[in-house]
Formats: sequence, C-alpha cells, structure tokens
Amino acid sequence: MSSLNVPHLQRLKSKRVVLASASPRRREIIRNLGLNFDVVPSLFPENLDKSTFREPSGYVSETSKGKALEVYQRLKDENCPVDLVIGLDTIVVIDDRILEKPGTPENALAMLKSLRGRIHSVYTAVTFVYPHEGGSKVRSFVEETQVEFANISDQVLQAYVDTGEPLDKAGGYGYQGLASFLIKKINGDYWNVVGLPTCRLFQELETLCEANEI
Amino acid sequence: MSSLNVPHLQRLKSKRVVLASASPRRREIIRNLGLNFDVVPSLFPENLDKSTFREPSGYVSETSKGKALEVYQRLKDENCPVDLVIGLDTIVVIDDRILEKPGTPENALAMLKSLRGRIHSVYTAVTFVYPHEGGSKVRSFVEETQVEFANISDQVLQAYVDTGEPLDKAGGYGYQGLASFLIKKINGDYWNVVGLPTCRLFQELETLCEANEI
Repeated sequence: MSSLNVPHLQRLKSKRVVLASASPRRREIIRNLGLNFDVVPSLFPENLDKSTFREPSGYVSETSKGKALEVYQRLKDENCPVDLVIGLDTIVVIDDRILEKPGTPENALAMLKSLRGRIHSVYTAVTFVYPHEGGSKVRSFVEETQVEFANISDQVLQAYVDTGEPLDKAGGYGYQGLASFLIKKINGDYWNVVGLPTCRLFQELETLCEANEI
Repeated sequence: MSSLNVPHLQRLKSKRVVLASASPRRREIIRNLGLNFDVVPSLFPENLDKSTFREPSGYVSETSKGKALEVYQRLKDENCPVDLVIGLDTIVVIDDRILEKPGTPENALAMLKSLRGRIHSVYTAVTFVYPHEGGSKVRSFVEETQVEFANISDQVLQAYVDTGEPLDKAGGYGYQGLASFLIKKINGDYWNVVGLPTCRLFQELETLCEANEI
C-alpha cells in the first residue's frame, strides 16, 4: 500500500521535520501518515508547577511547548537548523487531578480504582516551532478525548496490574494494549488517547503549508 | 508482559473455543485478551435480504448468528464438537443504508464523499453458540459506535483512495490504518469499529462462565 500523496505532505517531504518525542507509538502514527522525520527526544524536564495552571490543558500545552522549544534551540545551537519541530505531551485527568505514570503496582491499582465506572479526560498537546523572519514562531493546540471505564471488579483490576502493562502508562492503562477490555467507550479521537491526535495534526499541517508558514 | 489471569479466561482456556471469522484484526484482538481459540471461517453466504429488517442492527445480528450457527453445525457434523463458537459481523451505516466493501476505486470515492463532514454508525454483532441440554443455545448482542468524519477535500479523499486501502474495507475506510486522519471523533468503543467490541465481549464471556453456561 502506498502512502498518502497530498500537497502538504509532499511539501513536508522536502523539509527537515523533527519529532521531539521518544514514544514509539507516536513515531509509528506519524510514519503511517507518510511523513519523513527525525527523532530528537526532548531534554525538557517536565516539572512545571501544576498549581500555577487554571486548567490541565494549560499545563499540557506548556509542557509540549517546552519540549519543542528545547529541541529547536538545541539543534540551532549545534548548527543543525530544522524546518519544523513537533513537540507533544499527553496527560490523563480526573477531577482536575493529573495522573502520571504509576511506577509501582500499588499506585497503578489505586489509579485504576479511581477511574472505574467513571468518565475521565485525556489531553494531548501539540506544539509546532519553526523559523520565521529571522527568529522562530510557535503554534500549539490541545485535543481532548473523554474515556469511560467499565465498572471492573477489584480482582480483574489486580489481574491487569499483574500483567505489568500499567506501570509506565500515564493513568495506569494502555487503550491500544490489554486495557481495551476496561474501556466501555470514548468520545473524541482514539489516536489522541494513544498520544497523537492524527486528524487534527493532519489539518494543522495543511493550514501551515497552505499559509506558506513552512 | 503476561496475559490476563482472571477466572473466566482461565476457565475458557480448558475449553475448545472457535472463532468463526477469517479477519486477522479480530484474531489479534482476541489473542490479546489471552484467549486460546481455533479459527474456522464461516461459509454462511452473508446475503440476507436487507429490506426484511426494520433496523440495520437486526441485519448484522442475524448475519453474525448465521455465521456462528453454520460453523457450530458443520463441526458437529464432522464429529468435532466444540464448547463455544463466536460469530461476528460488522457493518457501516449512514442514513439507514448499509455500506459494503467498495470493491472499486470509484465506489470507494463515492462512499467516502457520502461520509465526510457527517456522523455515521458502525455496528458489530457477536453471537455465541454453545452446547446446552443435548442441543445448543444461542446468545447475541450488538454494539454501536458513532463515527464523525472531518470535512475532507475531494483531492485528499482521492489521494486516500489511491493508496488502495479503502477497497476491501466496509464503508471504504480503516480507522486502524491510514484513515485515522479522516476521523474527527468517535463515540463508543474504538475496537468495535475495528471489528470486535472487546469490553462488551469480555463482560459477556464473564457472564456466561459465572452462570456455568459453558
């Protein structure tokens, strides 16, 4: 099967595009679109003070911006300028509380218990940084998907924790993995839950190219 | 990573379960749950008269039942009785019209044009057939997911058709493939769009085992 032959993706093929994320899932989704890119994981510390943001979407947006800007500046300093850096961050939010990667089985179980039978939100923020009039320009957007967990018993949640999958997943689950049986429904873009809002990204790249911004 | 160690999946491991579907995607999703099963694609003709059903959900339900029963009976006739046959069917519906696999690029483009900028439904029906009191018992359920297409230009739809992906996909698109950029949002189970409602299937198997039906 061939990749998608549309003007803005063709135009981007002649540019140096950098993905500021180490996530293999994100890499796969972007490659699926037919985009050529390099991967330069960001060194941005991801430790913004959450209490200074009125909304979780503000926090995730600033983090994606921090990641993209760090990579853009570093490559510029190393005399490897690029045409576009794409920075991303994904968070899982319930009751205005941001759930990180659980790290331990105990934390994973507690997180999953707080999610079962309820609706929570997954936000992914995307930031573009690109050269503009001698300096650089920054554009960000945030996409939200609501996720409803089924009412799963303690025993089944424990069995899921025992598989080891939850430990390194924000919110303690991977919808693309074993956790598919935990999730009753979603409202929004599925790929946004996996870490990259494909439909919106495609449109934003089109807008950028049509406006001759890159 | 280990598979899910829960009582009903453990119980099913000692049974002969047959999936009456040739779809590699369905096979992968069920295997992901940790279920052992054989694959026996159904020979059921899938040519029920759509006009005799008041709702598309009735049509898809009867087709999944036809598939499961055909396999159950055939294996019984061949003296290879099984403990559970799972039959499945997925349809894409807009304006009460069922969209099949387009088959030609022209049909694919027309289908995609009828979907863009609008919400349609994907129904997957699941039927269980299993031995019961000397005969057999049949249980079916249907899961609906609503899918909203972005407002995509003719040029981009044509580029998608040119990739070849739409031809053998019901409705002319594969959300798990390149078509991810076409779909703005969904409301329901993502895996149901791919062809198997994982969350509901997991629960229905649990119910079946807890009631000692299989």
